[in-house]
Amino acid sequence: MTDHAVPAAFVDRHIGARRDEDIKHMLNAVGYDSADALAETAVPDSIKQASPLRLAPALSESEVLTALRQLAGKNKPRVQMIGQGYYDTVTPAVIRRNIVENPAWYTAYTPYQPEISQGRLEALLNFQTAVEDLTGLAIANASLLDEATAVMEAVLLMRRANRNKALAGAPGGGKTVLDADLFPQSIAIVVGRARALGFEVEVADLSKGLPEGPINGLVIQQPGASGRVADATGLIEEAKERGAMVTVAADLLALTLIKSPGEQGADIAVGSAQRFGVPLFYGGPHAAFMAVHKGLERQLPGRLVGVSKDDAGRPAYRLALQTREQHIRREKATSNICTAQALLAIVASMFAVYHGPEGLKAIAERTHAHARTLAAALESAGVEVAHRSFFDTVTARVPGRAAALVAAAEAKGINLRLVDGDTVGISCDETTTAETVAVLADVFGAGPAGDGLDTAWGEAASGFGLEGAMHRTGLYLQHPVFHAYRSETQMMRYLRRLSDRDLALDRTMIPLGSCTMKLNAAVEMEAITWPEFAGIHPFAPDSQTEGWRELIADLEQDLAAITGYDQVSIQPNAGSQGELAGLLAIRGYHHSRGEAQRDVCLIPASAHGTNAASAVLAGMKVVVVATAADGTIDHGDLAAKIEANAGRIAAIMITYPSTHGVYDADVREVCDAVHAAGGQVYIDGANMNALVGLAQPGKFGGDVSHLNLHKTFCIPHGGGGPGVGPVAARAHLAPFMPGDAASWTGRTEDGGEEHDLPVSASRFGSAGVLPISWAYVKLMGADGLTEATKSALLAANYVARRLDAYFPVLYTGEGGLVAHECILDLREVTAKTGVTAEDVAKRLIDFGFHAPTLAFPVAGTLMVEPTESEDLAEVERFIEAMIAIRAEIDQVAHGDFPLADSPLRRSPHTAAAVVSSDWDRPYTREQAAFPGRTPSQDKYFAPVGRIDGAAGDRNLICACPPLEAFES
Amino acid sequence: MTDHAVPAAFVDRHIGARRDEDIKHMLNAVGYDSADALAETAVPDSIKQASPLRLAPALSESEVLTALRQLAGKNKPRVQMIGQGYYDTVTPAVIRRNIVENPAWYTAYTPYQPEISQGRLEALLNFQTAVEDLTGLAIANASLLDEATAVMEAVLLMRRANRNKALAGAPGGGKTVLDADLFPQSIAIVVGRARALGFEVEVADLSKGLPEGPINGLVIQQPGASGRVADATGLIEEAKERGAMVTVAADLLALTLIKSPGEQGADIAVGSAQRFGVPLFYGGPHAAFMAVHKGLERQLPGRLVGVSKDDAGRPAYRLALQTREQHIRREKATSNICTAQALLAIVASMFAVYHGPEGLKAIAERTHAHARTLAAALESAGVEVAHRSFFDTVTARVPGRAAALVAAAEAKGINLRLVDGDTVGISCDETTTAETVAVLADVFGAGPAGDGLDTAWGEAASGFGLEGAMHRTGLYLQHPVFHAYRSETQMMRYLRRLSDRDLALDRTMIPLGSCTMKLNAAVEMEAITWPEFAGIHPFAPDSQTEGWRELIADLEQDLAAITGYDQVSIQPNAGSQGELAGLLAIRGYHHSRGEAQRDVCLIPASAHGTNAASAVLAGMKVVVVATAADGTIDHGDLAAKIEANAGRIAAIMITYPSTHGVYDADVREVCDAVHAAGGQVYIDGANMNALVGLAQPGKFGGDVSHLNLHKTFCIPHGGGGPGVGPVAARAHLAPFMPGDAASWTGRTEDGGEEHDLPVSASRFGSAGVLPISWAYVKLMGADGLTEATKSALLAANYVARRLDAYFPVLYTGEGGLVAHECILDLREVTAKTGVTAEDVAKRLIDFGFHAPTLAFPVAGTLMVEPTESEDLAEVERFIEAMIAIRAEIDQVAHGDFPLADSPLRRSPHTAAAVVSSDWDRPYTREQAAFPGRTPSQDKYFAPVGRIDGAAGDRNLICACPPLEAFES
Repeated sequence: MTDHAVPAAFVDRHIGARRDEDIKHMLNAVGYDSADALAETAVPDSIKQASPLRLAPALSESEVLTALRQLAGKNKPRVQMIGQGYYDTVTPAVIRRNIVENPAWYTAYTPYQPEISQGRLEALLNFQTAVEDLTGLAIANASLLDEATAVMEAVLLMRRANRNKALAGAPGGGKTVLDADLFPQSIAIVVGRARALGFEVEVADLSKGLPEGPINGLVIQQPGASGRVADATGLIEEAKERGAMVTVAADLLALTLIKSPGEQGADIAVGSAQRFGVPLFYGGPHAAFMAVHKGLERQLPGRLVGVSKDDAGRPAYRLALQTREQHIRREKATSNICTAQALLAIVASMFAVYHGPEGLKAIAERTHAHARTLAAALESAGVEVAHRSFFDTVTARVPGRAAALVAAAEAKGINLRLVDGDTVGISCDETTTAETVAVLADVFGAGPAGDGLDTAWGEAASGFGLEGAMHRTGLYLQHPVFHAYRSETQMMRYLRRLSDRDLALDRTMIPLGSCTMKLNAAVEMEAITWPEFAGIHPFAPDSQTEGWRELIADLEQDLAAITGYDQVSIQPNAGSQGELAGLLAIRGYHHSRGEAQRDVCLIPASAHGTNAASAVLAGMKVVVVATAADGTIDHGDLAAKIEANAGRIAAIMITYPSTHGVYDADVREVCDAVHAAGGQVYIDGANMNALVGLAQPGKFGGDVSHLNLHKTFCIPHGGGGPGVGPVAARAHLAPFMPGDAASWTGRTEDGGEEHDLPVSASRFGSAGVLPISWAYVKLMGADGLTEATKSALLAANYVARRLDAYFPVLYTGEGGLVAHECILDLREVTAKTGVTAEDVAKRLIDFGFHAPTLAFPVAGTLMVEPTESEDLAEVERFIEAMIAIRAEIDQVAHGDFPLADSPLRRSPHTAAAVVSSDWDRPYTREQAAFPGRTPSQDKYFAPVGRIDGAAGDRNLICACPPLEAFES
Repeated sequence: MTDHAVPAAFVDRHIGARRDEDIKHMLNAVGYDSADALAETAVPDSIKQASPLRLAPALSESEVLTALRQLAGKNKPRVQMIGQGYYDTVTPAVIRRNIVENPAWYTAYTPYQPEISQGRLEALLNFQTAVEDLTGLAIANASLLDEATAVMEAVLLMRRANRNKALAGAPGGGKTVLDADLFPQSIAIVVGRARALGFEVEVADLSKGLPEGPINGLVIQQPGASGRVADATGLIEEAKERGAMVTVAADLLALTLIKSPGEQGADIAVGSAQRFGVPLFYGGPHAAFMAVHKGLERQLPGRLVGVSKDDAGRPAYRLALQTREQHIRREKATSNICTAQALLAIVASMFAVYHGPEGLKAIAERTHAHARTLAAALESAGVEVAHRSFFDTVTARVPGRAAALVAAAEAKGINLRLVDGDTVGISCDETTTAETVAVLADVFGAGPAGDGLDTAWGEAASGFGLEGAMHRTGLYLQHPVFHAYRSETQMMRYLRRLSDRDLALDRTMIPLGSCTMKLNAAVEMEAITWPEFAGIHPFAPDSQTEGWRELIADLEQDLAAITGYDQVSIQPNAGSQGELAGLLAIRGYHHSRGEAQRDVCLIPASAHGTNAASAVLAGMKVVVVATAADGTIDHGDLAAKIEANAGRIAAIMITYPSTHGVYDADVREVCDAVHAAGGQVYIDGANMNALVGLAQPGKFGGDVSHLNLHKTFCIPHGGGGPGVGPVAARAHLAPFMPGDAASWTGRTEDGGEEHDLPVSASRFGSAGVLPISWAYVKLMGADGLTEATKSALLAANYVARRLDAYFPVLYTGEGGLVAHECILDLREVTAKTGVTAEDVAKRLIDFGFHAPTLAFPVAGTLMVEPTESEDLAEVERFIEAMIAIRAEIDQVAHGDFPLADSPLRRSPHTAAAVVSSDWDRPYTREQAAFPGRTPSQDKYFAPVGRIDGAAGDRNLICACPPLEAFES
C-alpha cells in the first residue's frame, strides 16, 4: 500500500544547502553541473565504490524515536550494586538539562581557541581543582578516557619518570607491580599493553607485602576491588625506599572520607569521576582522572587547563603545557591520548560545585553507613564478611551459594557482583536506600527487617567502618566556586553564564579542518539520557541488556557496510584508542604468523601526530615517509623506506583523503607496495566524511581503519570529548579485535598469540553515546549518507574556489578539486606583512566565528572544513569575513596602521575594550566590534582578549585562581 | 529501618538563601531573630493557620522521577484518530529541545518589557503572520487559550462590534447562531456562558440554510466536526446581508489546502494551532488563534504583537494597542483574557517556520490523501461515508455497529471517535501511515490490503476530496522568515539567536511583583515531554489515562489541603478562567437558592483589572470599594456599598495579601460583612506565595479562590503562558465547579440550575503542564512549602528595608513589614526630577536585570517580588543596582546632566550605541554599559534601545516586516 511521501525527510534537515538555487550557485562557482559530476571528478576512479551503499531505508525522526524506544524497552534498569568502578548516581536535573541536553555545551569543540572557550575551561579547571583537592596531589589533568586506561597511563608515566639509579641495572628499569585487588579490567589493560611494549608486570597480593625484585612502579587500589580499605602509607614508603614510584587508583567519593593518596605518599592518583553525577551509560563515557605531585606535570598525559592572562592582564584560561601533547611530540610522544572526556568531566565538576564539600561528604557518609548496616545484617545471618574496613563495598563469603544468592537478589530487582562461586560483592552508592539494604538482608537470610532487627543491625554496624588511620582529616574544596552555587537557580545561571562565554555550533559554523563539526541533531541526542539506556551497568547480565547489544551489533554492522570491512568493534573510546586497537591487531596478526620481527610502522610526514604516538604505544618503530611537493606520499621515498626495512615492515598508516584535504589518486599503489612488502595497511578514518557512499577503505586497500564517530557520525565534540573510535578490519584481522577487559583470559602467556587485547575498560567503550550514531545512520539511510558526502565536497570546493584569490589554496587534486576541506596558505602574507594565521583566527572571533584549524597539517596555514551541514548563507558569511580580513591585511601592508596596533593583532576585541573611553587605536571602535557590516543585535563579544599562553606556562597554575585575581 | 538523611533535599535547591550566614544577614537587616518570628509578626493572628500543613513526605529528585515514571506507565499512548480539535503531530526534536526544554524560552516572562523580549516577540509575530496568511484576514493576535473559548471570544466580539441598525430592535441585538457541526466543546462553552450573559444562542444545521429571525453573529466550523468541508461563501454573504457578522472556526492545517475564511467573506477566524507541532498533552495547553479583518483590531481580545521602532529608528517589536486589554479597561473590559499560550504559539510558529509553506502543504496533502484512501476502502466494504468533501476526517455510518467497531480498532491500538451508536469518526493527521489505514480498512471489513485491493482504494479515493470551490488558490507564508530556516542547524541557531536577545530567569532575577517568578526546576519540567504524558488524546478512553487522572486527582487533593478548601478543579487554563469559574460557581449557587437577583460584585479599587473583567463576563455588575490611605479596604465605604446594594450582593473579590503586598489584618471582618449581606467571598490567589503553609483562604473567610499554578506552583511563564488557574471552593459551591465541555448535558434549561458550566475546551484544561506543579508539591512537602513562604517573606522584607531610604516603600503592615513583595514609590522622585519609574525599569536593563512590575497597582511605582528562589547575592546585586540608579537620579537632580540626555532616559544602551564613534553624551560609555561596576565578561546588551510604543500604535503593523526594514 503506497505511503504518501513524508515531507521534509531528515536528510533535508541534516544537510545545510538543499535549495536548488543555492546548490546551483555553488556549483556554478566551482564549475560543475551537479554534485554528482563534481564527486565523479574529485574521487579517483581507482578507489570508487563499485556499487551504492546498501543499508536499511531511511527512517523519519518519529520513526527513529519509536525504534529507539523499542530498543530501550529491551533493557532492564535494576538496582545496580555490582560496583567495580561503576556506581549509580543521581545526575541533578539542572545539570542534565543545562549541560548534557544543551547544545551550547555539547556542540562545543575542544578549547584550543581559548578566547572563545573560557566557559568550558573554567568548568574543566573546577574538575582539576576537585581532583587535586580530593587526591591530595598538586596537579590534575582535565580527564582521561576511563579508569583502566588511566592506570595504564600511570604505569607508563612511572616507567618514563622513574629515573632511580637503583633500578638502572634492572631489565626495563624494574617490573610494574599491580595490586591484585585492582579492578580486573585495569589489570587486563596493563597486562595486555605490557606485552606490546615489552615490560614485566606482576600482579601481587599486597596484603602480604611487596614482592621481591626491582620494582619500577606500584599500583594500589583504594578501596580495593574487594572493598577493602587499608592504609598504604607504610607500603608506599617501603616501595619508594626501594626506588619505585607509586600510583593509587582511588575512588573520588571515598576520598571525601579516607586519607588521600597524597597524604599516604603516592606520586600519582588515578580513578574515575563517574559517580560524580555521570550515568552508568552501560560502561561509558565517563571521565577518568589523573593527578600527580609537583614536578611530574610535564609527564602528565592528556589535557591540562591552566591560568594565564589576556592582553589586558585579566586572568584567562587556556590549555597549558601543550608541548607535552602527542600532536606535537609525534613519535617522541609518551601517550597517544588526544580526545578527553570533557563533557563528562564538566558534569562531574558541576556535581562537585553543586554539592560542595559538605554535600559530597554527606553522600559518602550515607553510602558508607548503608554498607556498614548491610555488613552487620549479613554477619547477623552468619555470613562471613571479608573485610571490616571498607567504604561502600561489602564482600560476602558464601561458600557454594554465591550464584544462588546473586540470582535471588536479581529476582528482587537488585544486581550484585558474582565474584566467584563462593563470593558475592555488594557495592552501595548514592542511590542506595534503607529498603534495598533490608531486601538484601532478607535475601542473605538475616530475616525481614522489623522486630528490632534493623536496630540491632544499626548497632552492630559500628563494628565495621574505615580503619582508624584511614580517616581523612583536613579540608577540601575550599575554593569559593564549590560554595557559591547551592540553589538550582544559581547553578542554572552559572551554567548559562559559562556557556555564553563560549562559541559552539549553536551559534556559528566551526570550520575546523579534519574535525568535521557537523550537525549533532537533537533527535539523535534524545535517547542517551533515557534511563533504559543511561541506567545500565556494564556488567549487568545479558538478559537485562538485550536492547543495548542489539543496537551495538546493528551499528557495528552498518559501519562495516559503510567502510567495506568485515568486522567492526566500537570498543575504542577515542580515535587514539581506535588507532591503538588497529595497530595491536596488526601486531597480533604478525605475531600469530611467526613474524614478530615486523615492528616498523611507516607514517607519512603529513600524518596527525597521534598516528606516530599510537604506533609507539603499540610497540612499533616509526619510520617517516616524505611528502611530495603536491602533498601526496613521495613514492620514491616510500620505496626506499620499504627497502631499508625489508622484512620488518609491520604497517603503513595513511589518512585518506590525506590530511592535506586531497584524494591521492595513487593510494592503491601505496597499499599494494606495502602489502607486497608483507606489511598491513592502516587507513586512518579521520576524513571518512569525504568517503561515505563514494569509496570504502576496506575495499581500496585497507586492512584496518578506525573511524571517529564524533566526526563523521555525529557524536558531538562535547567541548573535547567524549569520542568514539571504532576499529574496522578485514576478516584476517578479526581474531585480534579488542576483547572484554573484564573477562579477558589472556593472563596466561600462550607463546605469541595476542588475541582480543582489550583497549578500553569496558566491553563497549563509550556505549552511552552510540545511540547518536545509530540514529544518524538510520535517519539518513544509504542515499542520505551519500548525499551528505557529496554536499560536503561541494561546500569545501566552493570555499576553496571563492577564497583562493585571497588566500591561496595549498593543495588540490584531480580537476583542481579538494576533498572535504581545504588548506589556505598564509605563509606569503605572513612573510610580507607579519600578519599570522593566528591573527586571522583570532580576528574571526570578532566576526562571531570559531577559527579554522590552525597550523595543521602545515604551519602557517588554516584548514577549512565547512561540512555538509552548513547552509550557503553561513558559508557566505564566513567567506565575506575572510575577504574582509584580507582587506585589513592589505591595510597593514599599505601602512594604514602598524601591525602591532592593527585590528588583526589586537583581536579579539572585548566589550570592555571597545567601550573604554580611552580609545587610542588607529582604527575605529566600529571596525573593531562590527567589522564589515552594520551593527548586529546579536554581536558576540569575546569575554577576554588575546591570551598569552606562554606566560601561563612559565608560571603554571592549574587550579581555580582566587577570586581576587579577577578584580581589576 | 532508618534511612540515612538524603543530602541536599530539594527544598535546599529551590530556596535561594539557605546558608545560615545569609539568612542571619537578612534577618539582622529586618530586625528579627528568625524567619519564623518574622512570619509570626507579619501574618495577622486572625488568619493564621491552626495547624501545620499535612502532605505526603517530601520526595527527592530521583524519587519524584520514579513516581512520575510509574504514573506515566499507567497511560497508554495509542494511534490517536479521535480528532475533534486534537490531532497527533510531530514536534521536531530541534524545537522540543531548544524551546520546550530550554529555560531561556520557558522561564521568560510576558513581553511587557519589549526591549528585553525581542526574541519572543519576533517568534510571536511569526505566529501572527502565519495565522493571518492562512486565514486570509488582516490581523491576528498572539494566541488565545483554547479553541472553544476562542469561539466564545469571537461571539462576544461580534456581539459588541455588530452595530448593524437592522438588528437594533432585536433583543440583545439578535441571537447568536452556532453551526451544529461545531465541536461539541465549543457549543458547550458558548451555550453555558451565554446563560450568565443573557443572550440567545441557537444551534442550527446550516446545511439547511440560516435560521429565521435576527442574527447578531454566526459561527461556522470548517472542516466541521463531522469532517464535512463545504464552501460557506454564499451562506456568509446571506448572513451579512441580514446584518450578522460571521466567524469561521478553522483548522490551520486544512487552510493550507482550502479556501480561507477571509476569501469566503468571514469577519473573524478562530481555531487551534495545536497540530502545528504541539503535543496532544491530554487536552492542553495549546495555542488557539483569532484573526479579524481590518477595522476590528481594537476589538480583538488577548495580546497583539506589533512593529514599532526604537530610539535609533530601528524596527522593534512590542505589544500593541494595550489600551484594549483587560488590565487597563477593568470593568469596561470586553474580555478577561490576560495570559496567552505564548510558549505553545512559539512552538507552532517555529513549526511553520521550519516546514515553510511547501512543507505544511505536503503534510496537509499527505493527511488528506490518507483520509481519502480510507474513505474509499470503507466504501468498498459497503460502509456509508457521510461526506464526500472532507479534509482529514471521515464520518462512517455503521448502524448499530459503532461501538463494536471502535472497540475493534482500539484492540488494534487505534482510537476512533464514537459519535453515536451508528456513527464513527476517523481523523487522519501528520502521523497517519498507510499501515494504519490498512488496519482500519480491515477492521471495517474492507479486507486486509493486498491482492490489488489497496490499488483499488487508491483509485476510488479520487471520488472523495475537497469540493471544487473550496480548493485554495493563492500563496501564503511568503515572508522570508518562512523560507530561511530549513536545516536543523539553521533552526537551532535561529532559536538561540532569538532567545539570546531576551532576558529570562536563566540569566537574571525577575523581581516582578504579583508574578512570583520563582525557580522552574528542571526536574519538575522533565516529565511533560514524555510521550506517555504528552501523547494522550483528551478524549481517549479512561482505561488509557489512569496515570493522568491519578496525577490530577492527587494534585487537586494537595491543592485543597494547602488552600483549606473542600474541592479543587484544575480545569481553568489561566488565572482569568479560574476567576470566571469561581464567579460562575457563585452565580450558580445564588441561582440555585432562588437568589438570581444577586448580581453585584464588590471589587476593591486596588484589584487587578482582570477581576473586574471576569465579573463582567460572569454577568455581574461591578461596584468598586475604595481603598484607605494605608492600602487596606476602606471599611466605611465597604459598609456603604453593601447597604446601597442590599439584597443584591453576589460576591466580593479580594486579593490576599492585597495587591499592595501587605497582609490586611481585617480580612476576616471584610469576609464576615459580605457573608452577613448574603454574598460570597472570592479570594484571588495571585498572592498565594505569601500564604502557603501559614494561612488558608478556605479557612479565613473565602468561599472560593483561584490559584495561579504558573506563579506559586512553579509552572514557568513561558514568555506569556501557558497558565493554569485552578479554582478551589468550599463544599457548598462544589456542585457548581466546572464540568466537562465535551460531555456537558446542560443544553436543556432546567430553571436556574447552572451546574458544571465548563470554562475550558478540555476537561482537565492545560493538563500537559500539571506534572510540574505535582512534582513541586511532592518535592517540597509540607515543611518545604512552608519554608518557601517564610523565605519569600524574608527576602521581600529585606529588599524593602534596604531600599526604603532610596525609594520609599509605599505600604507596610504589622510591624512595618510587607508580605512577599513591596511597592517602591517613585512619585516624589518623578515630581522633583522628571525621572519616571519607567526610566528606572529601562535603566535596570543596562545592569542586566528585568524590571520589577511597573505602575501596578499604583501608577508611578515599581513593585518588587524577589521570591524565595533568589539567593542573597542576586538580591544584593539588585539592591546595589537600584542604589546606583538612585545616585544617577541625584545626578539629574544636581544638574550633572539633563534628564533627556541622562543615562536613565537614554537607557537601555545597545552595543551599537556605546561602540559608536559619535559619542556625544554627558556621561561616559562605561557608565552607560557597565554602570556601577567593573566591566563584566557577561554583559548583556539590549538588542534595541528604548522603544516608542505609541509610534507603532499610530501605524499598526502586526505581521513580519519586510527585511529591508532592518537595513540601516
